[in-house]
Amino acid sequence: MKISARNAMKGIVKSVVPGMVTTEVVIEVAPGLEVVSVITKSSSETLGLKVGDQAYAVVKASDVMVAVD
Amino acid sequence: MKISARNAMKGIVKSVVPGMVTTEVVIEVAPGLEVVSVITKSSSETLGLKVGDQAYAVVKASDVMVAVD
Amino acid sequence: MKISARNAMKGIVKSVVPGMVTTEVVIEVAPGLEVVSVITKSSSETLGLKVGDQAYAVVKASDVMVAVD
Amino acid sequence: MKISARNAMKGIVKSVVPGMVTTEVVIEVAPGLEVVSVITKSSSETLGLKVGDQAYAVVKASDVMVAVD
Amino acid sequence: MKISARNAMKGIVKSVVPGMVTTEVVIEVAPGLEVVSVITKSSSETLGLKVGDQAYAVVKASDVMVAVD
Amino acid sequence: MKISARNAMKGIVKSVVPGMVTTEVVIEVAPGLEVVSVITKSSSETLGLKVGDQAYAVVKASDVMVAVD
Repeated sequence: MKISARNAMKGIVKSVVPGMVTTEVVIEVAPGLEVVSVITKSSSETLGLKVGDQAYAVVKASDVMVAVD
Repeated sequence: MKISARNAMKGIVKSVVPGMVTTEVVIEVAPGLEVVSVITKSSSETLGLKVGDQAYAVVKASDVMVAVD
Repeated sequence: MKISARNAMKGIVKSVVPGMVTTEVVIEVAPGLEVVSVITKSSSETLGLKVGDQAYAVVKASDVMVAVD
Repeated sequence: MKISARNAMKGIVKSVVPGMVTTEVVIEVAPGLEVVSVITKSSSETLGLKVGDQAYAVVKASDVMVAVD
Repeated sequence: MKISARNAMKGIVKSVVPGMVTTEVVIEVAPGLEVVSVITKSSSETLGLKVGDQAYAVVKASDVMVAVD
Repeated sequence: MKISARNAMKGIVKSVVPGMVTTEVVIEVAPGLEVVSVITKSSSETLGLKVGDQAYAVVKASDVMVAVD
């Protein structure tokens, strides 16, 4: 599947912390650059995510803000 | 200001393409890793974003999906 | 690519209306049930979307609200 | 109330799974087509959602991505 | 329609600026407190929004970040 | 940090309810006007949010819908 989301950052799963409904997943997309995601617990289970897996952090362009110092 | 968004990726603005209401901003957050953002044109102007500036791509954790090959 | 977004509704592209930065895409996901999407114009062009194509409307579960009459 | 969200898909609540802060709600919006939502637990309780209820899955157009095979 | 979005701030439309696909709408929800929205142009037209109208700014709780100084 | 999110409503934290992965935070941004946020538990802890603190509810313009009666 090819998706319209402009941002698909390839990386390695660093942690998977499940709650009751949602799960927090951390992906290292570049050396020292981690992206944190909260997805449904069922999605995480369906994808079978575990530490060390290769995965993508996917973000729609309209969900990215810009900040400056 | 310190924000709850878990993801603030520091980088360099590579392009700023304004439309009538929204503007597309591309930030390189690691070598070869670009993040695309669509923000309001007025926000882009208020921040004074231009190519070569240092900026952050900011994303709320609940807006990050995870994909696997 | 297999994505964590819980909702991927398969359908047929009914219209593609480009603006300067964003494009509105309408997908019929069931008889008489259309889903409207606004994506970046560049994504729409990369995907090569045109009327009559098969496509999926993809939505993260945390972006779905519930309403009652 | 009439809302700007372009997508309001009418259906039947198939499941309601509460966590501590959020609740997962599944709505069947067409035969065999389910939409999964994560809302706050308090919203779910305020709406009084339960299996078998009629409800709408509401999504803002900018939160819909498009994918192709 | 009663919606799960926890935030529905009642106010007065201060401006409506249409683009080609999206429209920027500003609503004053308390004295001196304005909320800016970008919706599809077609939604804005369907709602018939114009300056001086009473309207609500509606936001899903998962789309609200928190910041501190 | 100066962010592109058009909406930053200053207020007082009224409640902080942690779950396992997410935390619900309520901020009163004007007399009688509360905004509800769901953020990651870790963000809430990093910010050190507690009742009575001054804080901002921050929302991207594309995440604000408009409704009329």
